[in-house]
Amino acid sequence: MAFSPLLQNLVNTLRCLPGVGPKSAQRMALHLLERDRPGALALASALVDAVENIGECSQCRTLSEDDVCDICSSQSRDRTLLCVLESPVDMMAIEQTGGFNGVYFVLKGHLSPIDGIGPDALGIDRLLDRIDQGEIEELILATNPTVEGEATSHYIVEQLRDHPVKITRIAHGVPVGGELEFVDGGTLAHALAGRRSLR
Amino acid sequence: MAFSPLLQNLVNTLRCLPGVGPKSAQRMALHLLERDRPGALALASALVDAVENIGECSQCRTLSEDDVCDICSSQSRDRTLLCVLESPVDMMAIEQTGGFNGVYFVLKGHLSPIDGIGPDALGIDRLLDRIDQGEIEELILATNPTVEGEATSHYIVEQLRDHPVKITRIAHGVPVGGELEFVDGGTLAHALAGRRSLR
Ligand SMILES: [Zn+2]
Ligand SMILES: [Zn+2]
Repeated sequence: MAFSPLLQNLVNTLRCLPGVGPKSAQRMALHLLERDRPGALALASALVDAVENIGECSQCRTLSEDDVCDICSSQSRDRTLLCVLESPVDMMAIEQTGGFNGVYFVLKGHLSPIDGIGPDALGIDRLLDRIDQGEIEELILATNPTVEGEATSHYIVEQLRDHPVKITRIAHGVPVGGELEFVDGGTLAHALAGRRSLR
Repeated sequence: MAFSPLLQNLVNTLRCLPGVGPKSAQRMALHLLERDRPGALALASALVDAVENIGECSQCRTLSEDDVCDICSSQSRDRTLLCVLESPVDMMAIEQTGGFNGVYFVLKGHLSPIDGIGPDALGIDRLLDRIDQGEIEELILATNPTVEGEATSHYIVEQLRDHPVKITRIAHGVPVGGELEFVDGGTLAHALAGRRSLR
C-alpha cells in the first residue's frame, strides 16, 4: 500500500531536487501538506516565476531576469577586471567572499568534446569579442581546478595568444579535483588574491 | 551583491522544505534553473495539484484525494483491528513493515493543552463513534512513545472505560522519547507484534 496517487506524484517530483532521496521527499511532501500548505503554494509560484522569467544576463551570462544583471550594470564595479567562471554558483561563491570587485563572464559549463560541448556552447566567441573591445585589462581564469576546467582555461589562453590582455589563473589553494562551489570563502579569497600570471 | 530578486525568492521559498538550509536551497534553485527547468515546472504543478486536491479520508483522516482512502476502501483489510496514530507518516511507516493488515485512524497530532489542541482537533469523537458502531474488536494505540503521545493514549483509554473493546498499546521496542517516523521497519514490526493489553 503506497501513498495516494497525487501524494506519490508530489514525492516523486520532489526528487528532482539535488540531494533529496525517497525518504526526505516523503518527509517534505507530508510536512507541506500537513503543516505548510501556503508555503507549498508559494514555492510552486516561485518555481513558475523563476522558470518563466529568469534567462541569462546578456553581458555575463549569469542567471538573471533582467537583460543586464545587477553586477554588470553596477557603476561601482571595476570593468577592467574580468573573472571567467564555469557557473553562476561559482560567481555567487566569489561574491560572498567580498574580496572581488571586478565583473564576470559565466561559461555555463566547460569544454567537453564527448558531450558535444564546444566553445560555441560556452559563449567563448562573445568572451573574445568583449576582450577585443579593449576595456578589460586583466582576465582572471577561475574555471574549476579539474581536468575539464583546466582544458577550458587552456583553450581560452590559446585563443588569446596574439592579444595583449593580461591573463591570470586563480591560485592553487582551491583543492585540485574539487569544485569551486564547495570551497569555503576564506580559501576562495586566498585563491583569488594569490592568482598567478599565465604569461 | 545577492542573487536576482526572482532567484532569491526561489531560494527563500525552497527553505519551507524541512531540512533545507540556505546553502542547499541555493544549490537546489541553481540546479533547477540551469539543468532541470522541466523538473521545476513538474514540481510546481505537483505542489498545486496536491494542495488543491488532497484532503483527508473521511474514515481514517489520512491524507487522500479520495473521500475514502485506498486502505479504508480495501476489501482485504481486517476491519476489526484499528490502529490509532498521530500522523500519516506513521501510518506509512507501519504499512511499509508489511506486518499489519488492519485499518487506521490518524489523529493528526496529540493532545497539547498549551497549543490549544484538545480532543476535538484530533477527531477523538469520531474515533469513539466508530468504536460504538461495534465492528472494531481491538484498538491498537500507536501514538508516539513521548509524554504527549502517552497522554493522548491515556485519554482515549479513559474515554473507553465503560466500553468492552479490547485496547492495546504497541510494545516498547520503539525507543522511548523517539518518533515512530524515524524507527526502522524491523523495530516497528516487533513493537506491533509485541503489543500488550492495557486492560
Ligand atoms: Zn551580468
Ligand atoms: Zn482512510
